[in-house]
Amino acid sequence: MKTNDVPYKTYLTEDELPTAWYNLRADMKTKPAPLLNPGTLKPVTAEELERVFCKELVKQELDDTTAYIPIPDEVQKFYRMFRPSPLIRAYFLERALGTPAKIYYKFEGNNTSGSHKLNSAVAQAYYAKAQGLKGVTTETGAGQWGTALSMACAFFGLDCQVYMVKCSYEQKPFRREVMRTYGANVTPSPSMKTKVGRAINAAHPGTTGSLGCAISEAVEAAVSQDGYRYVLGSVLAQVLLHQSIIGLEAKKAFDKLGVKPDMIIGCAGGGSNLGGLIAPFMGEKLRGEADYRIVAVEPASCPSFTRGRYAYDFCDTGRVCPLQKMYTLGHDFIPSASHAGGLRYHGMSATLSELYDQKLMEARAVEQTSVFAAAEQFARVEGILPAPESSHAIRVAIDEALRCKAEGKEETILFGLTGTGYFDMVAYEKFNDGAMCDYLPTDADLAASFAKLPKV
Amino acid sequence: MKTNDVPYKTYLTEDELPTAWYNLRADMKTKPAPLLNPGTLKPVTAEELERVFCKELVKQELDDTTAYIPIPDEVQKFYRMFRPSPLIRAYFLERALGTPAKIYYKFEGNNTSGSHKLNSAVAQAYYAKAQGLKGVTTETGAGQWGTALSMACAFFGLDCQVYMVKCSYEQKPFRREVMRTYGANVTPSPSMKTKVGRAINAAHPGTTGSLGCAISEAVEAAVSQDGYRYVLGSVLAQVLLHQSIIGLEAKKAFDKLGVKPDMIIGCAGGGSNLGGLIAPFMGEKLRGEADYRIVAVEPASCPSFTRGRYAYDFCDTGRVCPLQKMYTLGHDFIPSASHAGGLRYHGMSATLSELYDQKLMEARAVEQTSVFAAAEQFARVEGILPAPESSHAIRVAIDEALRCKAEGKEETILFGLTGTGYFDMVAYEKFNDGAMCDYLPTDADLAASFAKLPKV
Repeated sequence: MKTNDVPYKTYLTEDELPTAWYNLRADMKTKPAPLLNPGTLKPVTAEELERVFCKELVKQELDDTTAYIPIPDEVQKFYRMFRPSPLIRAYFLERALGTPAKIYYKFEGNNTSGSHKLNSAVAQAYYAKAQGLKGVTTETGAGQWGTALSMACAFFGLDCQVYMVKCSYEQKPFRREVMRTYGANVTPSPSMKTKVGRAINAAHPGTTGSLGCAISEAVEAAVSQDGYRYVLGSVLAQVLLHQSIIGLEAKKAFDKLGVKPDMIIGCAGGGSNLGGLIAPFMGEKLRGEADYRIVAVEPASCPSFTRGRYAYDFCDTGRVCPLQKMYTLGHDFIPSASHAGGLRYHGMSATLSELYDQKLMEARAVEQTSVFAAAEQFARVEGILPAPESSHAIRVAIDEALRCKAEGKEETILFGLTGTGYFDMVAYEKFNDGAMCDYLPTDADLAASFAKLPKV
Repeated sequence: MKTNDVPYKTYLTEDELPTAWYNLRADMKTKPAPLLNPGTLKPVTAEELERVFCKELVKQELDDTTAYIPIPDEVQKFYRMFRPSPLIRAYFLERALGTPAKIYYKFEGNNTSGSHKLNSAVAQAYYAKAQGLKGVTTETGAGQWGTALSMACAFFGLDCQVYMVKCSYEQKPFRREVMRTYGANVTPSPSMKTKVGRAINAAHPGTTGSLGCAISEAVEAAVSQDGYRYVLGSVLAQVLLHQSIIGLEAKKAFDKLGVKPDMIIGCAGGGSNLGGLIAPFMGEKLRGEADYRIVAVEPASCPSFTRGRYAYDFCDTGRVCPLQKMYTLGHDFIPSASHAGGLRYHGMSATLSELYDQKLMEARAVEQTSVFAAAEQFARVEGILPAPESSHAIRVAIDEALRCKAEGKEETILFGLTGTGYFDMVAYEKFNDGAMCDYLPTDADLAASFAKLPKV
């Protein structure tokens, strides 16, 4: 076992930290299709978006030509609390697998939100504060995004209103308490605070909510209160922009080590982590400077890339958000109750969808029992207890390392370890007890869902 | 706000990592009093200890003259998974307090066990494996130690049997699941697996257990199975030795920065974190090379230093372990059900007790409501959600920084942030709901407990 070749962990120094985000769209010849106004079906304007979103974030959302966007000074300072994240050489996993592959992972879990979500939360809270807002609203399902936003709002002195899917609110009281500790106002959704919440409660008494409903409530809360805007933790181009910090740091660390990965693997729900991790590498690929295999890993229970359609669809069940062209399972698709809450989204980032459609990246769907088996194997040798979402990438990294072993190839693999599983022990308990199952949508399920795609 | 003076976080490079632990006792003129055999009341021999503990660990326990003990190569490799831990300049906390004090903290929570406990767990598991043992037994209350030991045993392929205080087992199912994920066998104590467990269950039907009982069960399990030994996560000199890695790294990072702390603050339960953090600084103090104010912070509900007696006492309620001369509240003392489980120990490290008796360090007791207020304040500006135990040190660091503000002094403060609070959200919930109380022992409680101190 070599540990004097490349260090186990590589940290950039503060001087080496990126000072600008990288906007991948600037290097795409065919840009992602524009967002459409759900009423007019015409490209949405900045003015329309600014009713819901912060002004500067709308600008970033619509800008597909500026390659580098400076990171504001206050955001850079906040980043120093939890960044750089380490680039880790998985020596122990390599030894356990007996593979000639060289495995690296970029670990984003070393912060209290437990995931990469904080990278965008701090940026969004900063712009909200800079605009002079009182606060922001959002929804959260698994809880990582709500936690990250609560932390960012506490730091900037913003009110933070989180609509948390009721079943999560009840099943994950500890996630809720972390948000409350950071001063957030957490409401189980559907609530009686909004029109849409009251309507849903009336129509479906006793419902435990859904992400779609929580989004609708958060948007209503934002537009109906003076000095509030709505913020979102994934899917949007602005989020991928902020998350590019992951890939920029990883690329710089590899350059310091004199290493070039052959393959980059990331889990994909809405695409925020994967889009951020691959950004500078995909940029090189688009500019013809280098080549990389890039693999998106999604749950077999919610397979947007591998079984979805590339079409315009609503981003939310409530149909209040703009339409986006993306790989989608249909906005009415309800994935089974898997334990990777952060990956249970019917659609996918428009940017990643376009790149996938251009065959610049691959996708693979994996079942959750095999994901937890990989998570446990990883935890026991590498120490870190991974989030179920992140473990999708681990599964494929292990599979690829074993392929390298079978083929006798010394490939260099990078995967994104987006977060920790401390708040997912109910899922681990099910796995440890042998009580976890895989539920996959049938072709009939998907056909029914595709039938409801909007005609654009 | 300066961030280009000293970096927010200072990491040592792998080349700079300590390769030997520092044995503070070697520099003490008056050594800690010897452990006594509870039967004979004579100093315990290596042979006697080796029936219960690993051979190499017994050697370390009894060695009070060798200053530096090499860290085995495999342990150094494991350390690279989660070490170096960062030395963090609390710029954001300083700004929030408006203090001229310079506050630093050494953060030990960036690993799955969530605390510094892993530093000793990996060493103890390594020596158990090197001795050819099949496994180890231990007890755990709050769960940090059990988790750390489970991780270390998974890595070295050792069986790990954890006796978890029954009320914790039931109230902290997620802690239990982390241990199970690392392959540990977790038994609620008192159990029906051991003689002492059956006896206690018979005498006190429905009891939810205590740390004292769990220790007794773990020791019995170790001595009654071939190829097993018992391991302990605090109090012992060997544990402080392994934990010296914290202080050694901190000292080296300060030296790199050209900074010398005036004051070092750590929470103290059994003393493992505090003893490790202060080791090289106290060494300089003992050798007359430098001076530092050193402050132990303990819960007012379990005030061994501030209200205890310096006397020989049993380390466990079951009286199966050796007698140790230490600051103690009496082995029968039951602290109130505070939320800092890791600090609810009736005694204190013999080494720290002797240093405190020689007035080389101070001690302060703080109440848990004020501790959680400090924890929340810290979390909101510094990002990290601290463990209740660690927050005792935060409380005093904030108080001292405010004293510096009042006195206009630019002192440099270092405190130990031993871990994260992700598994303590029940406690935070109580605090957030305004439902937390402080229960302090009365003088009569303590007098009754002191009356049961053994006559040595």
